[in-house]
Amino acid sequence: MNDKKVLLDYGNGGKKSYDMISKIILPAFDNEYLNKLDDFALFNLDSKRVSFSTDSYVIDPIFFPGGDIGELAVNGTVNDISMSGATPLFISAAFMIEEGFLFKDLKTIVNSMAKASKKANVKIVTGDTKIVSKGSVDKIFINTSGVGVVEEGINISGNNVKVGDKIILSGTMADHGIAILLKRENLNFTSTIVTDSAPLNGMIKNIISSKADVHCFRDPTRGGVGTTLNEIALQSNVGMEIYEDKLPIKEEVKGACELLGFDPLYIANEGKLLVFVAPEDADKALSVIKKNKFGKDASIIGTVTDSKKVYLKTLIGGRRIIDMMSGTQLPRIC
Amino acid sequence: MNDKKVLLDYGNGGKKSYDMISKIILPAFDNEYLNKLDDFALFNLDSKRVSFSTDSYVIDPIFFPGGDIGELAVNGTVNDISMSGATPLFISAAFMIEEGFLFKDLKTIVNSMAKASKKANVKIVTGDTKIVSKGSVDKIFINTSGVGVVEEGINISGNNVKVGDKIILSGTMADHGIAILLKRENLNFTSTIVTDSAPLNGMIKNIISSKADVHCFRDPTRGGVGTTLNEIALQSNVGMEIYEDKLPIKEEVKGACELLGFDPLYIANEGKLLVFVAPEDADKALSVIKKNKFGKDASIIGTVTDSKKVYLKTLIGGRRIIDMMSGTQLPRIC
Repeated sequence: MNDKKVLLDYGNGGKKSYDMISKIILPAFDNEYLNKLDDFALFNLDSKRVSFSTDSYVIDPIFFPGGDIGELAVNGTVNDISMSGATPLFISAAFMIEEGFLFKDLKTIVNSMAKASKKANVKIVTGDTKIVSKGSVDKIFINTSGVGVVEEGINISGNNVKVGDKIILSGTMADHGIAILLKRENLNFTSTIVTDSAPLNGMIKNIISSKADVHCFRDPTRGGVGTTLNEIALQSNVGMEIYEDKLPIKEEVKGACELLGFDPLYIANEGKLLVFVAPEDADKALSVIKKNKFGKDASIIGTVTDSKKVYLKTLIGGRRIIDMMSGTQLPRIC
Repeated sequence: MNDKKVLLDYGNGGKKSYDMISKIILPAFDNEYLNKLDDFALFNLDSKRVSFSTDSYVIDPIFFPGGDIGELAVNGTVNDISMSGATPLFISAAFMIEEGFLFKDLKTIVNSMAKASKKANVKIVTGDTKIVSKGSVDKIFINTSGVGVVEEGINISGNNVKVGDKIILSGTMADHGIAILLKRENLNFTSTIVTDSAPLNGMIKNIISSKADVHCFRDPTRGGVGTTLNEIALQSNVGMEIYEDKLPIKEEVKGACELLGFDPLYIANEGKLLVFVAPEDADKALSVIKKNKFGKDASIIGTVTDSKKVYLKTLIGGRRIIDMMSGTQLPRIC
């Protein structure tokens, strides 16, 4: 591009829009579907059942320890599609960009999306770009939506959890939220905390292949593990008991939470999976998860009960209710 | 809701998010897919070929003569999916809302989306809400994505246009862009110009049923008819000749364009269709379009040539090149 910055002209649907798309976006996402430059992507789906999901990414800052908004936008939607037990296949990318945004940064983000989509084995096949005047959006927002296919016989939903199910968490809590917070507030007292943003479709595929009787997958993003457990309890009309001593958390994340007064149960994760599985298959599912590179720290963290509430059995032997998060801990975390 | 305004809390993924979704969004879009409240929608598609599209709506103002951002967001994505010849079926809705936005306005927009989706015969089956702090986004942005199915034997794309094809425009040009501009600039010298926002899937279905040999459908939105013709000329490596005297335009829109110094060929439309059809089927397609309530003013506006450029045959008999739009006429038009 001759310009260093994204000007309003690049969003008018005319010559400059065409330039930006053909010079920055197409080369990065390069595939036969997107390259057609129609307003739609056409593809074949070899299954009748489709999983469809959407998410907008408004994270601040857009570059952070371990990742950026682009990688997050791909992984987040890949994960949401996968939570049905589907294999995610095709993704859209819609950019809302503030006038004056640097093309250099746009390239970094787009390349990071391209890399993430290769890792997750999905194709970015359709998109949209809007440029708005300075002050109408903070730097860049990205929406990704996508579809995947669900094989026959799979029936996974937040509505399917049963009393007695074991609850597995695939790794440490609160990494993403704390990494963003520390970066945003310039709290550099530790440099080892990075986002856990990761695609979970590989892990989910392995669990399904193991034939473990899974009732629900869910990634505990906004609201953290605590809120997510409550959502599922509501959907399935059940309760849960969680064992504090089984909750995986990195020492430095725990330390940061204590120092800053945050409860890690309510802090966002971007590469963690909650699995609700029939008790007889819990160990099998756990061992499959532990073999995945994003699941090394997995742990059975609790059991589904008929109490209609989510309880935490604390380290010192007490029992307290974990409710949905109320109030705002961290806005623009994803 | 007890609050009058959308606070940051409503975006934290916790109790208030759940409240907003269950009290405002679910009742409006009410359907079995969305009501499950999973992170994905699961549905059956009775065809292997799928058309997938995405668009973000950043229009300013959000309420305008004849419509609002909600209606536009549904119609726009319905139309993009349909341009493949597909029947659009399922839509997502992702809201990015500025802290302080009125719940009253959110309800109006959501209801307007519900109404538009009923009219277009699509279901809003999955979604996302993000709330960002004041100043991080201007009022509200909405992304809609969606999927539809393509019947066997249909092969419609901007890449398929052939020399000799007739070009049909389904109605008057520039209504949407001029309606927005007049509202935005408080130019109330005429009150009769309203957006043409409309779902085009019904019209497209009728054209396909007529068996007319259509090579391309395209809705001339951002960039207007002029830019859209150029895009298709590039995609199919052809030229076009357009007859100025055949271009449908309302007298008052023409007047506003002349007064304000705009070329209606570059002004956005939101409910108009360009059809590229084999010459022997042009009259058949035209008569089908004219029978549709959004196609009364349809006209054959030109012919595809091998000149590689888009020419306008002017009223006074001259010939000038129509290029892609350069520069910005109207930002945030959709």
